[in-house]
Amino acid sequence: MDFKVWHLGIKSGGKQIIVVDNEDASQLGIHSSDRVEVTYKNKQIIAITNVAEEFPKGTLGIYSEVYDKLKVQNGETVTVRPAERPESIGYIREKISGRRLRAEEIKAIIMDVVERHLSDIELASFVTSLYIRGTSIDEVEALTKAMVETGQTIDFGKGPILDKHSIGGVPGDKTTILVVPIVAAAGFTIPKTSSRAITSPAGTADRVEVLCPVDLTCKEMRKVVKKTNACLAWGGALDLAPADDLMIQVEYPLSIDPLLLPSIMSKKKAIGADYVVVDIPTGRGTKIKTIGEAQALAQEFIELGKRLDMNIQCALTFGEQPIGYAIGPALEAWEALSTLMGRGPIDLVNKAVSLAGLLFEMMGIKDGTQKAKDIIKSGEAEKKLRQIIAAQGGDSKVQPEDIKIGPETVEIRSEDEGRVQWINNRAMAQIARGAGAPKNRGAGVLLNKKLGDKVAKGDVIYTIFSENSQKLDSAVQLAKNLNPMGITGKFGEKMLIDRIPSKKVSYEKPFILER
Amino acid sequence: MDFKVWHLGIKSGGKQIIVVDNEDASQLGIHSSDRVEVTYKNKQIIAITNVAEEFPKGTLGIYSEVYDKLKVQNGETVTVRPAERPESIGYIREKISGRRLRAEEIKAIIMDVVERHLSDIELASFVTSLYIRGTSIDEVEALTKAMVETGQTIDFGKGPILDKHSIGGVPGDKTTILVVPIVAAAGFTIPKTSSRAITSPAGTADRVEVLCPVDLTCKEMRKVVKKTNACLAWGGALDLAPADDLMIQVEYPLSIDPLLLPSIMSKKKAIGADYVVVDIPTGRGTKIKTIGEAQALAQEFIELGKRLDMNIQCALTFGEQPIGYAIGPALEAWEALSTLMGRGPIDLVNKAVSLAGLLFEMMGIKDGTQKAKDIIKSGEAEKKLRQIIAAQGGDSKVQPEDIKIGPETVEIRSEDEGRVQWINNRAMAQIARGAGAPKNRGAGVLLNKKLGDKVAKGDVIYTIFSENSQKLDSAVQLAKNLNPMGITGKFGEKMLIDRIPSKKVSYEKPFILER
Repeated sequence: MDFKVWHLGIKSGGKQIIVVDNEDASQLGIHSSDRVEVTYKNKQIIAITNVAEEFPKGTLGIYSEVYDKLKVQNGETVTVRPAERPESIGYIREKISGRRLRAEEIKAIIMDVVERHLSDIELASFVTSLYIRGTSIDEVEALTKAMVETGQTIDFGKGPILDKHSIGGVPGDKTTILVVPIVAAAGFTIPKTSSRAITSPAGTADRVEVLCPVDLTCKEMRKVVKKTNACLAWGGALDLAPADDLMIQVEYPLSIDPLLLPSIMSKKKAIGADYVVVDIPTGRGTKIKTIGEAQALAQEFIELGKRLDMNIQCALTFGEQPIGYAIGPALEAWEALSTLMGRGPIDLVNKAVSLAGLLFEMMGIKDGTQKAKDIIKSGEAEKKLRQIIAAQGGDSKVQPEDIKIGPETVEIRSEDEGRVQWINNRAMAQIARGAGAPKNRGAGVLLNKKLGDKVAKGDVIYTIFSENSQKLDSAVQLAKNLNPMGITGKFGEKMLIDRIPSKKVSYEKPFILER
Repeated sequence: MDFKVWHLGIKSGGKQIIVVDNEDASQLGIHSSDRVEVTYKNKQIIAITNVAEEFPKGTLGIYSEVYDKLKVQNGETVTVRPAERPESIGYIREKISGRRLRAEEIKAIIMDVVERHLSDIELASFVTSLYIRGTSIDEVEALTKAMVETGQTIDFGKGPILDKHSIGGVPGDKTTILVVPIVAAAGFTIPKTSSRAITSPAGTADRVEVLCPVDLTCKEMRKVVKKTNACLAWGGALDLAPADDLMIQVEYPLSIDPLLLPSIMSKKKAIGADYVVVDIPTGRGTKIKTIGEAQALAQEFIELGKRLDMNIQCALTFGEQPIGYAIGPALEAWEALSTLMGRGPIDLVNKAVSLAGLLFEMMGIKDGTQKAKDIIKSGEAEKKLRQIIAAQGGDSKVQPEDIKIGPETVEIRSEDEGRVQWINNRAMAQIARGAGAPKNRGAGVLLNKKLGDKVAKGDVIYTIFSENSQKLDSAVQLAKNLNPMGITGKFGEKMLIDRIPSKKVSYEKPFILER
């Protein structure tokens, strides 16, 4: 059936969508979410149908993604016919029914994900059934390999390639900005890619961007790595395992994460990583609540690593409070830089040298942690970070005090006295986001006290930074409602944690999807 | 955040969708599929966000559904802020995790479905988890009641109300057009609503529409029922259990049907049905393959009926070939009318009097089947159908030969001799659809032979009707590929059913969602 094209000027963010009137759809025998084949001259694409009511008859509304592929102008004629259902939908149905999928079936699904042949409904159903039915290690391996094979891979032309990854969930975790220069300063190659925040107040890419550009092409990334042995790049524009990014768009509204392992490991495999330390923050307020869960997850990482020819070490780390004192892109960049200059908090230093130390020990170095400490102490790590900043196009002479923070601030004071007994990670993250992070780079929270610190009534316990007073006010309001820090004289003096129903507190979703 | 409105002129078919540029979205802290609250003057609605790239900044694209609610003109200013997540998403998460939901939780979900607060991703995930986790009878009851309560209900002011329903799956099943006038002719009230075809060649509403209008309002329906004790209306415009229609839009692309019982029973409850016969076609080529499965399903209908104060009888019927000879809206209307005039095929007559008979026996009449036969024989059923046709605005004098069929036809002849051993329902349905049904009312298939009939080589076994020669050709091609009728001399003479891999045959999806 022929249609006149109407370019709607809307970009869906990847999906190839066409809009037709419901009478035309019924003529074609198609429904919303059905796939159609759109032909223009010698070009042909598969698109997903949105059926509209009261849309002009005989007109095919096209999103920009369709325009980009077909280069068809307004008013020109295209031919539309129902497309065959992709085979992969049959495999999704099998997964819904509980069958383990074979590698080639998983490959077919992932290819159709990347080629945008699947609708949100089909993707959501697939992700839900992966979550409910679970995935065997064979399926996890196949998912990971399919994600790698359907994307870009980078060969740095030298080896071995080292890498680190945190499964996230702890605010203020700027450890990567320390580990990468420490490892590179020892002569190893560590081409690190990171994500921006989705639901957290800062991702590593957001933090590093305060110091230098992170939005590198593959070519630029290779150049930086050649020069410095390392990089701190944003992974989002590199097209590494693009299926993962598309799956996250569905996992996010559902707050489920069945693709955690393939998601992380496909990005590592795509840059050719040989040795990887995976940080699993553990404890109350993190994604992984117990040591038992953490150990089980670690075993899966290690087994999957073997199947992908990667050597994996998992580090279970204490995650029950933010790392260091700073939360928010600029505050964290400031703290990371200060720490490499010798003025950092003990937990941040300890976490960084532990993780770098594990990588060193995997490379056969004895007492890797001591070596990592020495590299910070000698100034080599700072020097390496400045090289990376310069290579990525930033100011290598940047000083902590150059980093723009705030300027609007409020100090939050304790109404109790005693010691800090608990800090609510999620509440702290939410306050920092309320203040404007990660979008407003200078916004965030600076802790003045951490777990175990002595607090007198009226002491400043944390400070909120914002770039505008309205957001500052709303962050202060959040701080009042969420009460993110527990201060008591002695354990046991305050046994009441909460009452239910309690005063209405609107938490953000209890799930952090950062990878 | 304030936006200038741009009315996109697209109707989504119900969903309240707004489009914003990704930078604006990030400013607002929202992602695709997130809900926002849109305020214009004193009006406020919840809409679902589509994030677009390269969309004009500061502009809010609105779909027609949003326009209809807010009545805001192009260029006017509205305020947008992130909406709180509906509580029901938490309950969907619980269902994903396998928990049984409480009635009030199900009510909250169904209300949010009807108010369009849930995205396709969330709905697809809910439907998938209902399918995988299963539903307890308490959940089924709660789903049914919630669907009834969130829609229109009709009180006909007299009782008892009788009804019949087929779970479908067999082509050519025009039984309803016979059962309704038989039952009404006996003085009972049977206000029947039916659906149009989704994936089949004809729904009851499509068939009846050949004889008279079916698109009645509630008021018109009540008037018709008052006059004739019955109606044969299309249920789609009556807003009975609208949640069901919205769920079907998600179930259809997934080919799963976890809401079969609530879907059917909510529509019955909404018209106040007291006595219902549910037809469960059973056997190869139907939805329910075995007697065991059919019995289990029947028990669920009966139990659910008790909880809804409805008296249910289930009829397990033979479903391994089409009912009667005709498939396609006009052909079936012709066959139904002829049958009430005394010239019908034995299986159609038998099915109709059996189902009507069951209803009669539920009302205390002895030998209901005989009574139903008598009503056909006496001409009372035909007279009643003509009354209904007249009351709904059709020509009560219509004769079978007035019904427009074809006009393009091809006779398919047997290449073998023997008897008809099997007929493939799905293939027959697909050929009829290929010929243009249900959209082209005159298209379809007329069987010349049925199961057990003797066939000589060269005999016409079925005839394809179409309104245009191109569709006729494609239906003939389908007929060649699908080979829908098996003719052999003796059982056992042809043991080879199929070979795998065999010649490529593109079946339509192996699932029929009609209800």
